[in-house]
Amino acid sequence: MPHAEIIAIGSELLTPFRSDTNSLWLTAELNALGIAVRRKTVVGDDEPFLEETLRDALRNSPIVITTGGLGPTEDDITRKVVARVMQRPLVLQPDILDRIRHQFEIRGLPMSPNNERQALVPRDATPLSNDYGTAPGLILREGDRQLIVLPGPPREMRPMFTQQVRLHLEPLAGHVRLRTRTLRVAGMGESQVDSLIAPIYTRYTNPTTTILFNNTEVELHFTAKAPSDDEADTLLDELVGQVEDVLGANVFSHRGETLEQIVGLRLTVKGYTIATAESCTGGLVAKRLTDVPGSSQYFLEGVVAYSNAAKTRLLDVPAELISEHGAVSAEVAEAMAAGVKARAGTTIGVGITGIAGPDGGTDEKPVGLVYVGIAGDFVVTHRKFILPGDRDRIRHLASQVALDLVRRTFLL
Amino acid sequence: MPHAEIIAIGSELLTPFRSDTNSLWLTAELNALGIAVRRKTVVGDDEPFLEETLRDALRNSPIVITTGGLGPTEDDITRKVVARVMQRPLVLQPDILDRIRHQFEIRGLPMSPNNERQALVPRDATPLSNDYGTAPGLILREGDRQLIVLPGPPREMRPMFTQQVRLHLEPLAGHVRLRTRTLRVAGMGESQVDSLIAPIYTRYTNPTTTILFNNTEVELHFTAKAPSDDEADTLLDELVGQVEDVLGANVFSHRGETLEQIVGLRLTVKGYTIATAESCTGGLVAKRLTDVPGSSQYFLEGVVAYSNAAKTRLLDVPAELISEHGAVSAEVAEAMAAGVKARAGTTIGVGITGIAGPDGGTDEKPVGLVYVGIAGDFVVTHRKFILPGDRDRIRHLASQVALDLVRRTFLL
Repeated sequence: MPHAEIIAIGSELLTPFRSDTNSLWLTAELNALGIAVRRKTVVGDDEPFLEETLRDALRNSPIVITTGGLGPTEDDITRKVVARVMQRPLVLQPDILDRIRHQFEIRGLPMSPNNERQALVPRDATPLSNDYGTAPGLILREGDRQLIVLPGPPREMRPMFTQQVRLHLEPLAGHVRLRTRTLRVAGMGESQVDSLIAPIYTRYTNPTTTILFNNTEVELHFTAKAPSDDEADTLLDELVGQVEDVLGANVFSHRGETLEQIVGLRLTVKGYTIATAESCTGGLVAKRLTDVPGSSQYFLEGVVAYSNAAKTRLLDVPAELISEHGAVSAEVAEAMAAGVKARAGTTIGVGITGIAGPDGGTDEKPVGLVYVGIAGDFVVTHRKFILPGDRDRIRHLASQVALDLVRRTFLL
Repeated sequence: MPHAEIIAIGSELLTPFRSDTNSLWLTAELNALGIAVRRKTVVGDDEPFLEETLRDALRNSPIVITTGGLGPTEDDITRKVVARVMQRPLVLQPDILDRIRHQFEIRGLPMSPNNERQALVPRDATPLSNDYGTAPGLILREGDRQLIVLPGPPREMRPMFTQQVRLHLEPLAGHVRLRTRTLRVAGMGESQVDSLIAPIYTRYTNPTTTILFNNTEVELHFTAKAPSDDEADTLLDELVGQVEDVLGANVFSHRGETLEQIVGLRLTVKGYTIATAESCTGGLVAKRLTDVPGSSQYFLEGVVAYSNAAKTRLLDVPAELISEHGAVSAEVAEAMAAGVKARAGTTIGVGITGIAGPDGGTDEKPVGLVYVGIAGDFVVTHRKFILPGDRDRIRHLASQVALDLVRRTFLL
């Protein structure tokens, strides 16, 4: 199976303010053709670096795709550097020049002499016509290497790829299909997940496995290669099935859904409703639940009770309970959950109290200590967590463990 | 002026789903030190490609920074490949191992044997301590070349850079200083801002000006280059002062503060308190206000009242008012604000009601219609907005206009 490299060209992509998004789109297109992307590079309008980068890429990869640097200005250097690296002289193509002239005429604009540069094509290159701009793209072959040169603006690059480049790449890609599957895991750390599943996935080179820690949860990506989608799916079924067996109920999502979508789905299926009572998460659990379209069907209300007085007034948490156990305690988390459930008349109530920091921690109750209470019709329960990180991370993790605890109540 | 390359390592960054955002942050930091970024590369967990990429980078650039691939799992290969490229054996560092063990003990988690790998350090490398994770970073010198190896998670990478790497790079950077200033603007669109300030900034090539539309607000970045910080600041003062004059009170932040930080600052200075009553934003305004450390001083409580019954029960919004004007109306927004203020006993109450979509819109009340009510001691007022975008964008924009309205009440 051939692999590709993508090179994005343009000094603006080396500032803190811009990132190369073309390569994400191109990667999806290439993967669908069965072509993996092995490296992506961003270089500025900088001849020596671009030259070096192109040479390295052509040495290492049979397919190299560049985007950008085909404009009419001085700092658009792609054409020139490509010609030099491929050792082919630039030749003015009269038909391309006519076309560019014609595009200016249609728009009633004068053509600046700069634009003539865009009609220069390295000898024996195949020009790719540009229906949405003046810069033609290029395909250059050298032995078993392909260099595909595309313009930077997505509205020019994308149709050029789908209408012209895809047809060119299909026969190279052979009959290989790539399929991916994603599992999301809650309640376990990255290394805990890895030590459980490494004995399984290390036995396979196809599918490949990637483990990601994504802010608050572990994500597993599996990619299989096969002559057909069905065969790739069979490979995935075998490996992913074993991983699912080992991780059990810690896998909350099998098709990329978020935890709040899964909780919403479970609530909807059961016809349940939910209300939240939050202290340290400050509304984040309510926000995540209501991120899901249609959540008004099951999310009835949320309370953010920062002060002790608010906990008593809004959630009926007895003042004595707070003074006896402290606002951050299992007892108060349960009372918050039960209080919001009773007041809102929902099936489930969730209470979260904790210390998000940076201040407010003590030896006995450190920053990161979080209690989550869950109240149902017949049972009120809680769990205690010590969460790592700064304020932002602790709040995110606290919302995650709270939503995960709601999810797990449906497993009982 | 020395230049740098950045290499992001991780197969997930070569999928269509993830982009390397660390490099944007690192570029801003390096630029502030007077170091330009000449090339950025993304490689997977792929030993031959990483090896080749590292060798190329070290041949071409005096400073090479890598992020990622330092985790405890099989596919974290950075440590191993760096050792090979720099021709130095990996040595187990007992003090780092003790530290990692200690971090697990604190959290009450078992350390998996995998984590021992993170204590392997190439000979003569300087380890960088990681206060937010288990993987130490590394600095390796070879002649006039510097290889700086950082972890991938931003919460680990950023403090490691600012607290340890910056000090190391400062002496290398020489006598050019880059200084940047950021203004954040609310209540105006990108093109409206640009048409007002383009006549000013186009007269300057130093500082340079970049206009960004960042999810819910316009951000202006100004960067000046000079032999000293003072001279760069003088250049910035001249241009930025003129821009501030033209944009007036629409500029809410002059030093990169977020809108919720600015609102918190104003509340603190005045000794005011605030409570929120949210419908369509579902807790997002409370979440943003409580993102700020110390917000418990002024944020007393928040209510997320999705159902009409909850609006009446929790916020004393008269049921007749809802039936007469509808839940999404100026009257209900004001009643929510006044209700939460009265119940919580705060100086300011905020009410937000609207239609975030995708469903629930009508011709008369379309998706994106949002009313924000503000209640103070003597006045209750509201503003109406029609916000563009999908559910997520509408909710973000609604939280932004609500916080901005709170900010503007202090300007009266």
